[in-house]
Amino acid sequence: MVEHRQTTRSGGGPLSVGDVAALVDGRVSGDASVQVVGLAPVDEADEGDLAFLAARRYAKHVPRCRATAYLVSSDLDASLPENTTRVVVTDAYPAMRTLLRHFVAEEAWVPCVHATAVIAEDVHLGDGVQIGPYVVLERGVHVGDGTRIGAHCVVGRGSVMGSACRLHPHVVLYHETELGNGVEVHSGARLGSDGFGYTLVDGEHAKIPQVGRCIIEDDVEIGANSTIDRGSLGDTRLGRGVKLDNLVHVAHNVRVGARTLMAALVGIAGSTRIGQGVFFGGQSGAVNQSNIGDGAKIAIQTGVTRDVPPGETMSGSPGRPHREELKRQALTGRIPKLLERIESLEKEVSELRRE
Amino acid sequence: MVEHRQTTRSGGGPLSVGDVAALVDGRVSGDASVQVVGLAPVDEADEGDLAFLAARRYAKHVPRCRATAYLVSSDLDASLPENTTRVVVTDAYPAMRTLLRHFVAEEAWVPCVHATAVIAEDVHLGDGVQIGPYVVLERGVHVGDGTRIGAHCVVGRGSVMGSACRLHPHVVLYHETELGNGVEVHSGARLGSDGFGYTLVDGEHAKIPQVGRCIIEDDVEIGANSTIDRGSLGDTRLGRGVKLDNLVHVAHNVRVGARTLMAALVGIAGSTRIGQGVFFGGQSGAVNQSNIGDGAKIAIQTGVTRDVPPGETMSGSPGRPHREELKRQALTGRIPKLLERIESLEKEVSELRRE
Amino acid sequence: MVEHRQTTRSGGGPLSVGDVAALVDGRVSGDASVQVVGLAPVDEADEGDLAFLAARRYAKHVPRCRATAYLVSSDLDASLPENTTRVVVTDAYPAMRTLLRHFVAEEAWVPCVHATAVIAEDVHLGDGVQIGPYVVLERGVHVGDGTRIGAHCVVGRGSVMGSACRLHPHVVLYHETELGNGVEVHSGARLGSDGFGYTLVDGEHAKIPQVGRCIIEDDVEIGANSTIDRGSLGDTRLGRGVKLDNLVHVAHNVRVGARTLMAALVGIAGSTRIGQGVFFGGQSGAVNQSNIGDGAKIAIQTGVTRDVPPGETMSGSPGRPHREELKRQALTGRIPKLLERIESLEKEVSELRRE
Repeated sequence: MVEHRQTTRSGGGPLSVGDVAALVDGRVSGDASVQVVGLAPVDEADEGDLAFLAARRYAKHVPRCRATAYLVSSDLDASLPENTTRVVVTDAYPAMRTLLRHFVAEEAWVPCVHATAVIAEDVHLGDGVQIGPYVVLERGVHVGDGTRIGAHCVVGRGSVMGSACRLHPHVVLYHETELGNGVEVHSGARLGSDGFGYTLVDGEHAKIPQVGRCIIEDDVEIGANSTIDRGSLGDTRLGRGVKLDNLVHVAHNVRVGARTLMAALVGIAGSTRIGQGVFFGGQSGAVNQSNIGDGAKIAIQTGVTRDVPPGETMSGSPGRPHREELKRQALTGRIPKLLERIESLEKEVSELRRE
Repeated sequence: MVEHRQTTRSGGGPLSVGDVAALVDGRVSGDASVQVVGLAPVDEADEGDLAFLAARRYAKHVPRCRATAYLVSSDLDASLPENTTRVVVTDAYPAMRTLLRHFVAEEAWVPCVHATAVIAEDVHLGDGVQIGPYVVLERGVHVGDGTRIGAHCVVGRGSVMGSACRLHPHVVLYHETELGNGVEVHSGARLGSDGFGYTLVDGEHAKIPQVGRCIIEDDVEIGANSTIDRGSLGDTRLGRGVKLDNLVHVAHNVRVGARTLMAALVGIAGSTRIGQGVFFGGQSGAVNQSNIGDGAKIAIQTGVTRDVPPGETMSGSPGRPHREELKRQALTGRIPKLLERIESLEKEVSELRRE
Repeated sequence: MVEHRQTTRSGGGPLSVGDVAALVDGRVSGDASVQVVGLAPVDEADEGDLAFLAARRYAKHVPRCRATAYLVSSDLDASLPENTTRVVVTDAYPAMRTLLRHFVAEEAWVPCVHATAVIAEDVHLGDGVQIGPYVVLERGVHVGDGTRIGAHCVVGRGSVMGSACRLHPHVVLYHETELGNGVEVHSGARLGSDGFGYTLVDGEHAKIPQVGRCIIEDDVEIGANSTIDRGSLGDTRLGRGVKLDNLVHVAHNVRVGARTLMAALVGIAGSTRIGQGVFFGGQSGAVNQSNIGDGAKIAIQTGVTRDVPPGETMSGSPGRPHREELKRQALTGRIPKLLERIESLEKEVSELRRE
């Protein structure tokens, strides 16, 4: 197969190590005048690169690394040979972000509406929008300024997008979906699909009309192939700055507070209320219309079945406060010892009885 | 962001509270002549609305609610102030369904075949069908009367759809898939994809041709981004009235009985046999070609690894009968007490020995 | 609904039972000159068919089966009536594969580029490629010889596909994705989407640019609606012969060794290192940048949270070596007996004290 080494050199030009330190508010050790042309992981960095070292497990690659200098978090500073040129920072990730934004050229794009797009007569297109090939915009759709809609996206009637949104190819918004400003939606995400709502009529599951909306506030990012249902009666809503990973499911009438994160394959059942700044680990879920407080942490594969107080960490299935769950796990481990103690007691008692 | 209050007033016009009671077979308390124009959740209802109250947790919103009248389930009747106009029903959900079907105008649509659809010469299009922009229908496809196929759907050669089906935008049917009548498939669902079947040949996983079909019976609904594989040898089949939520996976050669429900992110492994009226909670799964009896209930995140008798409720991973699983959970909780009793016994025995 | 019995007779013509035995290296019992025209499951096989019997649970269908002869694995040979014509093999699945490749005609296709495809000027199209309706190939894309790209696929700028690849309809490759030779990608899979990477800046989750690539080596197959993120810094890579089922998520910077298999709904968190020939059961996952050794087996719904030695079988959530997990499960089951023993001890001790 064709293969090229990955570099991030295409962007803003070389920097001296001193410049790097100034950009990321770091401390230089070694020659501050040395030039670097890109950022690379320590196991892939080559001459001219600034190697990125922020996790102890990567330190083993240092001896073979040919990087010109390092960006290193202060707790790993000691793992570099003494004479290595480096920029030391407290937290390497914001620094990495800053440098990537310098080194990596943002993709150039020009506003345009592709000739193959099918756009209803009354659609509002803001200034500087980009509409890709084979996009379908149904009647009443509103596209805010600077918003980009990738190839094959389908936007249902009456849907509204704010400014500076980005829909990657193959996104579908059902009718009357609303996105705020700066929302990014990855390929294959479906927003505003019908909720899973039936009621028994004559022994059959009869569908309850799903007439609420799906509302996404500013600066939300939604991962590839995730699905957010519209509300049944009333709306489904993701608050400002919420970030969802791939293959996440959010059911009808769920409310998610600002800045909450959900990792891949999370499933949130209908009418769950989720606070601000909550974190859901991969494959976790919530049911029973639970209320989850601000800042709660839900560990991977946890099944939340009841209300969670603010700040609580939950784990297990059914989910319990993490300390309680750990204790339960430890208790099971103590059973063999317990058995030994009972056996020894039985022996002693039978001896006593014989006396 | 642009935002409008959600109302459901666009449909069949206002009703008096007496009319409402007649429609839903309910009992009026208060002024039966008062008019309502739509149905709304109790925390969003405004003047002119009929507020919907069917869950105790929403009763707290009643004091601030400005609704003109209530639709309330009989068990919550007492949570309304005495002089509130209301319609009381035994089960609020069928009533809600009836009223939504009155108040909410069904989307108007006209039969048409979009000029951009790519349709093979021998495709059969029934009467009154709707074929959206950029749809691809391969040779031998049969589209029943009144069936609607949304933008960008791709229907593989020889696939058959009955009458009154609806494929939302971006559905793919692989070749020779069969849908009965009244089947609804949401965006991004894939039907008839290859099963996960390999056999070792010279140390490599060699693909077994997947030559069965994917057959979906009448009145099935399939959620967004769900995947139903075709059979390997023999078919995969979903029975009449089955309802799948979003992101559900059904593997090759699975048979699902009529009226079975699967919540989001459920995964069913190959050749599983599932009875009628089974319920799968979110993120649950079944493996090992298990047989699951009629009316079984599989709790969220349960992993079924063996046969399940009809009517049984299963929970845990590996899945066990729910009462057994609850007992196991309770037993672990008793270990600390057990430890105390052993300690006290040890003390007593050592005292006895000293005597 | 329209329905036709599934046969696999359309391919390479009838075979005598003797021919079958020669093809699959089996032993004939009965009349080797009898002709069969297709392969079918034992519960669906009819006159003229070779019935396939490889699992004991299907043996119950033998008495009603009208098949002309059987393909049977040696361990089930005794479950057939004595005078039944059969071909006996050690492992029935490779034999099934061989016969299906004989009986089932491979789909015919002709190289062509559909008139509606939107192809950038500098795209390289190899010899004998097939480009379906509404495909979008952005600038710099390379399509190897004999590669087929289904309807509506979108291939981002600079992406490279080797020879003899197949993208089913509705696949999206983000920019700079690389596929080797013989890669098959099912409908709705998304490759090279952004990883889930944020860092706190002024109390908000700020996105870290995801500048690595998504690299897929030769002979990989990826299931419907699966998602493989591009690397953040450095690449995500699936090794030669990896097979992923539907709805699988592989996060940024994961490395998967050759011939590893993942069943449906598996989720692999960022930077996980997975060896060769590993098997992941459905709905299992791995986090914490764990290293998973060659040949490890991860049971369904297992949550791997730490390194796994080569060849180890893991189960449970959190995942533990399977024997340890089984022991833990058994221990819990022993608590009731343990309680009885304590009660009886308490009785004896109180009697002893009364003496």
